[in-house]
Amino acid sequence: MNAIKTVGVLGGMGPDATVDFMAKVIAATPAERDQDHIPMLIDHDPRVPSRQDTTPAEDVTIREMLAAMAVRLEAAGADFLVMVCNTAHGWLDLALERTTVPFVDIVEVTADALTARHPAVRTVGIMATPACLEAGLYQRVLESRGLASLPAEGRARRDLMRLIDRVKAGDQGEDVAAGMAVIAQGLVAQGADAVIAGCTEIPLVLAAEQLPVPLISSTDELARRTVALALGEATLQSRRHLAER
Amino acid sequence: MNAIKTVGVLGGMGPDATVDFMAKVIAATPAERDQDHIPMLIDHDPRVPSRQDTTPAEDVTIREMLAAMAVRLEAAGADFLVMVCNTAHGWLDLALERTTVPFVDIVEVTADALTARHPAVRTVGIMATPACLEAGLYQRVLESRGLASLPAEGRARRDLMRLIDRVKAGDQGEDVAAGMAVIAQGLVAQGADAVIAGCTEIPLVLAAEQLPVPLISSTDELARRTVALALGEATLQSRRHLAER
Repeated sequence: MNAIKTVGVLGGMGPDATVDFMAKVIAATPAERDQDHIPMLIDHDPRVPSRQDTTPAEDVTIREMLAAMAVRLEAAGADFLVMVCNTAHGWLDLALERTTVPFVDIVEVTADALTARHPAVRTVGIMATPACLEAGLYQRVLESRGLASLPAEGRARRDLMRLIDRVKAGDQGEDVAAGMAVIAQGLVAQGADAVIAGCTEIPLVLAAEQLPVPLISSTDELARRTVALALGEATLQSRRHLAER
Repeated sequence: MNAIKTVGVLGGMGPDATVDFMAKVIAATPAERDQDHIPMLIDHDPRVPSRQDTTPAEDVTIREMLAAMAVRLEAAGADFLVMVCNTAHGWLDLALERTTVPFVDIVEVTADALTARHPAVRTVGIMATPACLEAGLYQRVLESRGLASLPAEGRARRDLMRLIDRVKAGDQGEDVAAGMAVIAQGLVAQGADAVIAGCTEIPLVLAAEQLPVPLISSTDELARRTVALALGEATLQSRRHLAER
């Protein structure tokens, strides 16, 4: 039997999403006692500047902070790295330059789950932050798989960001969930036959049951892949697709 | 305004208890956005051997693993350390020798909360693991404050450990909670006018509402103190009492 791998987690963006990810890793691990569980090193740093409407100076700070976290996690013994924030995946260049262990891309992992479990889907609604949508993180990956993207636009995009900010402020109330469901249903009305929750705050309030089409949660898929990788049931991939961004 | 301090967390003992602690820190932090939250470095290592019925070799491994975690957290920038496991506080000597930042003692913090909020209490029921009770971690601290201890004994002690192990295996069902409530009520029947949940798995299932006397949760009190210390609203204490164990 191979030893369980140690996961390095770039977290705190936001805090509740990181805890949600950890809880999902633990729940997805077959374990009878503490010692069966997956070791995780978590750098939970909510001080990383907001990834929305960044200035060039903030861009540098985000890139440097993420790189410092990754370097520290690798030095502390992480066998691979994950980051519990979709949007921040657009600022990973320095982190990738300065570390050598595999970095699991939440966007690829989420797209993998979508295509594996729902092969008939053709048009994918994307719920994510404005910065994530403007960077095209999901659109590019979906296009490379021959899928059409339907990102939240205009007022829906702005409303979604306000709801995400309410979750970040600790509000997981029913009206936040209802507001997100309205946005998801709007994407379905426009033709989406699946919706990606491409921001780790969304699955804290929006449930698959609220939609008539499959909802793919980036947090859940990252947790599932993390468990498979740590237990040696999946193979770590090259970091090429991340480095090419 | 002082900068928020960074908390180093020795975790994974067990996994769900660590997540519970983090969620309680986040919920207790006054925050409107990610950047208001407390940075945490978490070494979530469930591979630390069980603290029950240890061999001398296991004792060495536990002491060395906890020391390695503490050293790594201090080196990574933790301003103070906490550990989300009551029992393991009996194996901290090497960790204290090899680090210099304050180490917040969950046992002292829990006793502080008890005496501050319930000054009339005289006899304290203690729910904890056999190893924690045999080491007298709570009994000594309570005695130094003039309080009588009523630890779970005999069959109740063994039953409690079985229930804690079920929580560690992921079972937070109603019968686990009911079993713990029976043990707590037994301590009350014997004369306890407050009960300490002195194992971080207990608050995952046992709620204060299930008891006719105050229930003091070690996880909740450690989270509360962590927030106060990180925000500069409480003063870090000497590590003398821990080093004297």
